[in-house]
Amino acid sequence: MSSRIVTVALGDRSYDIVIGSNTLAECPKLLEQWTGGSHVVIVTDSNVDDLYADALGDQLVDAGLDVHLLVIEAGEASKCADVAIDLWETMLVEGADRTSAVMAVGGGVVGDLAGFIAATFARGVEFVQIPTTLLAQVDSSVGGKVGINLSEAKNMVGAFWQPTGVLVDVDVLGTLPDNEFAAGMAEVVKYGVIMDAEFFAYLETNVDAVISKDPNTLQTIVERCCRLKADVVEADEREESGRRAILNYGHTFGHAFEAATQYGKHLHGEAVAMGMVCASRLARKLGMIDEQTIERQVRLLEALQLPTEASDFDAEEIYRLMWHDKKVADGQIRFILPTRIGEVQLVGDVKSSDVLAALSD
Amino acid sequence: MSSRIVTVALGDRSYDIVIGSNTLAECPKLLEQWTGGSHVVIVTDSNVDDLYADALGDQLVDAGLDVHLLVIEAGEASKCADVAIDLWETMLVEGADRTSAVMAVGGGVVGDLAGFIAATFARGVEFVQIPTTLLAQVDSSVGGKVGINLSEAKNMVGAFWQPTGVLVDVDVLGTLPDNEFAAGMAEVVKYGVIMDAEFFAYLETNVDAVISKDPNTLQTIVERCCRLKADVVEADEREESGRRAILNYGHTFGHAFEAATQYGKHLHGEAVAMGMVCASRLARKLGMIDEQTIERQVRLLEALQLPTEASDFDAEEIYRLMWHDKKVADGQIRFILPTRIGEVQLVGDVKSSDVLAALSD
Repeated sequence: MSSRIVTVALGDRSYDIVIGSNTLAECPKLLEQWTGGSHVVIVTDSNVDDLYADALGDQLVDAGLDVHLLVIEAGEASKCADVAIDLWETMLVEGADRTSAVMAVGGGVVGDLAGFIAATFARGVEFVQIPTTLLAQVDSSVGGKVGINLSEAKNMVGAFWQPTGVLVDVDVLGTLPDNEFAAGMAEVVKYGVIMDAEFFAYLETNVDAVISKDPNTLQTIVERCCRLKADVVEADEREESGRRAILNYGHTFGHAFEAATQYGKHLHGEAVAMGMVCASRLARKLGMIDEQTIERQVRLLEALQLPTEASDFDAEEIYRLMWHDKKVADGQIRFILPTRIGEVQLVGDVKSSDVLAALSD
Repeated sequence: MSSRIVTVALGDRSYDIVIGSNTLAECPKLLEQWTGGSHVVIVTDSNVDDLYADALGDQLVDAGLDVHLLVIEAGEASKCADVAIDLWETMLVEGADRTSAVMAVGGGVVGDLAGFIAATFARGVEFVQIPTTLLAQVDSSVGGKVGINLSEAKNMVGAFWQPTGVLVDVDVLGTLPDNEFAAGMAEVVKYGVIMDAEFFAYLETNVDAVISKDPNTLQTIVERCCRLKADVVEADEREESGRRAILNYGHTFGHAFEAATQYGKHLHGEAVAMGMVCASRLARKLGMIDEQTIERQVRLLEALQLPTEASDFDAEEIYRLMWHDKKVADGQIRFILPTRIGEVQLVGDVKSSDVLAALSD
């Protein structure tokens, strides 16, 4: 079995993302390469525990490691300070110290929370990620953003903490619910629109292989997305130069859709899919793209079973919610808008009437 | 009024420690130099609020800044996760965002806690320190160690987070209780023993000026200690090479003295003073130093009104507690032991009988 490797280089450090099919079996060997210690704390959730994490823990024990498995309740509500305190205290009781490693086995919630624990326990310990959702594989395995939510703000407490290694097994996507798989594909499409027209075309011609979860196609997709995101993050690790902002394409509208429905109706990726279409319509209003550039995105997203219509939302409410986004700066909402498939621009100073029109089309 | 500046250079970043007499008046000007934003969150405690923080806040408001003052209960108990959550949530309600700065005005508890908040709120915001105890001025203003305690372990959760600037006004030491002032001097003496014989001699000849809190002498002391610690930290920011370990001289014994009395009997610096004497006695047992090198330290510490005798402790219990120290690695207690005034060595593999004898002398 061959695996593909994406190397993420950040300053004087770098780490590998190993991507393949049936790669979970290689976990003990990779963990030995990646971490120095013999004590591993696995953080997972109540869904992934039975599916993969428990068995992974057994593998590591068989390989002679000292393993503790910490299981949180599945769901966004666990990504909070109270659960973080529980994990810190439990690690201490279990004998974790600065030489222990934290290994996240799960989706975005598990990765963000476990990463925050790794960033802060004993002022930072080694962190290994095994993302088990498509979204986590293409998004949170690169970038180093870890954190928890406050009661009124998502991701408001956290750190930049890079993993020492990431292991992606595309086979685990077989147990992912269809709507979560589709939602992950929204972020995949995003990478094509913002920086890689060739990749966008690849997706257009491989929709069937994607939907049937062909392992080779999935590996190609995860590898390309990780490489593309790594290129962005390598240029702007801490979101200082503005380059990293292009990753927010579709997210300014998308976050507002999520907020308007109290994060209860649409998966994040579904909201981003609708957001990308709205952003494209706004770009069209501003004369930045032609109609065809919108239509190609709508066709691809719909073929991937993603929603593209946001006309049910109250445009005025969505516009108001957009002003609460963390990215608002200097009294402007900053939009990431396409100029063609494969390229976006940061645009501030947009008239409210254009935004409202883009939402109502 | 002239101030002295110690520049701490860490990789591609550096920051200044401004040290002087009546320098609090310069706070608005320095804050403008050091931070980009206009929103400042001051974290202080219930003792320092009335003495300095409240007035500092007023100065900053007069200078046109948007200021929020957060006051925690004085004492080590506030350095915990529950108080951290309160501060995060309050900052959010007060409108803090990634452009806000956190300014710590207080001693070690305030600095460590506020630094942890700065390191984690919005994945890290600018951090300014105004240390108001001698210990905080000579110790926590350099190094970037921030954090909170867990219920059973001090400083177990935290980060390395460097300030953008530190302002030291030695005049504030006028309101510091005598025993806290003396405890700070224990760390000052430590710098002399571990790396600067000339400075040790300076302290020996200036005990009276120190005790009378002569501003010029205090500035010299704070400046020299910050420079010495900066030299160590610049060489080993994240405690990786082992160089930083020399700062633990007196602390392996000292922490055990503190733990044996539930952190309730001796101030940290007092325990370190006794710990330095014990470490020196151990070095003597191992033939590393002569009796005079012990006696010079005892004389100076006693002149500074610090305890030097640990013979009341149960040596066996202290030895057992030393094994719980975070610094234990590979089944060895690592001692920092003097070879002469101005130089120390890391020594592992020490016989228990020698440690017990050093405690019983």
